[in-house]
Amino acid sequence: HHIIVCGYGRNGMQAAERLKAYKRPFVVIERDKEVIERFEEDVLFIEGDANDDDVLLEAGIERAQYLIATLPDDAANLFVVLSARQMKKNLFIISRASLVNSQKKLFLAGANKVIMPDKIGGDHMASLVVMPDLITFMDKLSLEGENTTNLEEVAIEDFSNQIDCNSLRDLDLRRKTGCTIIGYISPNGEYIINPEADMKLQPKSKVIVLGRPEQIKKLNKMFHIE
Amino acid sequence: HHIIVCGYGRNGMQAAERLKAYKRPFVVIERDKEVIERFEEDVLFIEGDANDDDVLLEAGIERAQYLIATLPDDAANLFVVLSARQMKKNLFIISRASLVNSQKKLFLAGANKVIMPDKIGGDHMASLVVMPDLITFMDKLSLEGENTTNLEEVAIEDFSNQIDCNSLRDLDLRRKTGCTIIGYISPNGEYIINPEADMKLQPKSKVIVLGRPEQIKKLNKMFHIE
Ligand SMILES: [Ca+2]
Ligand SMILES: [Ca+2]
Repeated sequence: HHIIVCGYGRNGMQAAERLKAYKRPFVVIERDKEVIERFEEDVLFIEGDANDDDVLLEAGIERAQYLIATLPDDAANLFVVLSARQMKKNLFIISRASLVNSQKKLFLAGANKVIMPDKIGGDHMASLVVMPDLITFMDKLSLEGENTTNLEEVAIEDFSNQIDCNSLRDLDLRRKTGCTIIGYISPNGEYIINPEADMKLQPKSKVIVLGRPEQIKKLNKMFHIE
Repeated sequence: HHIIVCGYGRNGMQAAERLKAYKRPFVVIERDKEVIERFEEDVLFIEGDANDDDVLLEAGIERAQYLIATLPDDAANLFVVLSARQMKKNLFIISRASLVNSQKKLFLAGANKVIMPDKIGGDHMASLVVMPDLITFMDKLSLEGENTTNLEEVAIEDFSNQIDCNSLRDLDLRRKTGCTIIGYISPNGEYIINPEADMKLQPKSKVIVLGRPEQIKKLNKMFHIE
């Protein structure tokens, strides 16, 4: 159930760092020997070209859960995505793209998500001009870190195993923990933003909770989450 | 009070599109004649090199409020940032950077914000693996669009001009509009995430409000915002 990262450029390196911080098992396919020599104490590498099926096999694609294609060239990512999809149907594939036109092709080839760093970067720069306070607020929301996180995703079962709750109101999270419920994910994956207090809680649904770190900690402790 | 965008590559193009969508006045400095010819019907260009002080003057740097440096080369952005800062003290400068090491230098040269697209992209890719639901939720939050926005930043004066309010509780926004207050920005720019109901409302402070589009609309209408 590991993750295969293709390419150890700036994109791949950042993705790998993040995966490492979360203690998720991953392997990086990289063809540049010098890059491998420089980082091999920190990262598990497979030397070779991600375009080569044998290299994907060596990286354990048959057991992998995710593949992240971060090659600098869209055509190379397309090749990897298509190969990987053919080799494994139930693999979650995330690809980088430079050109807008590549996005559709990557989806056709089998990518589940396509990320365009230049587009995200350009959006971010303009947003700093047109809505600086909102962007700064969003940037301050930390998704990670045991003692800094502001958002937590909680399965309804974590609540319903311990208290009687039919609706969000019954949970009464605000009074108990200070946390605010800002989203609801239904069992079929529909996202509801800012749900009403009388929203019915279905089995297998989830809620997204906002709080300051100490409030999130209280929540996690109270309901024995994680 | 216009914005100067340096470079019309993928980054600059996306930033320009966003600025245009918000009807913000901007001019793009670009040295590639072919690029200018292709897009000059949509965008106001100054032909020339952003590294040239005369070109920055021609782009109206003396009257500009923001400069966005999106050149593909960190050294070129550094040069632009340093020049622009020397020409105008109270200019808000946002620069792109490729290498982590450039970030500090860009700040030293006078940048107010530095954006690293590859880093943001890599983070995003890894987050799709480690916290897919939270990332999807954040991505679904729309900051823009008259009929799609989920977040609104409201000056306290917009409320206090119309109702008596000393604390968030007095505003009673949830009952009146369905919206939830998820942040507070103090007059000196401190951000408080998930503020308490008894938080005192100081003059010149702002709140960040979350809601579904129809709730945000109701809020804007009720308090005559914008
Ligand atoms: Ca968690
Ligand atoms: Ca607004």
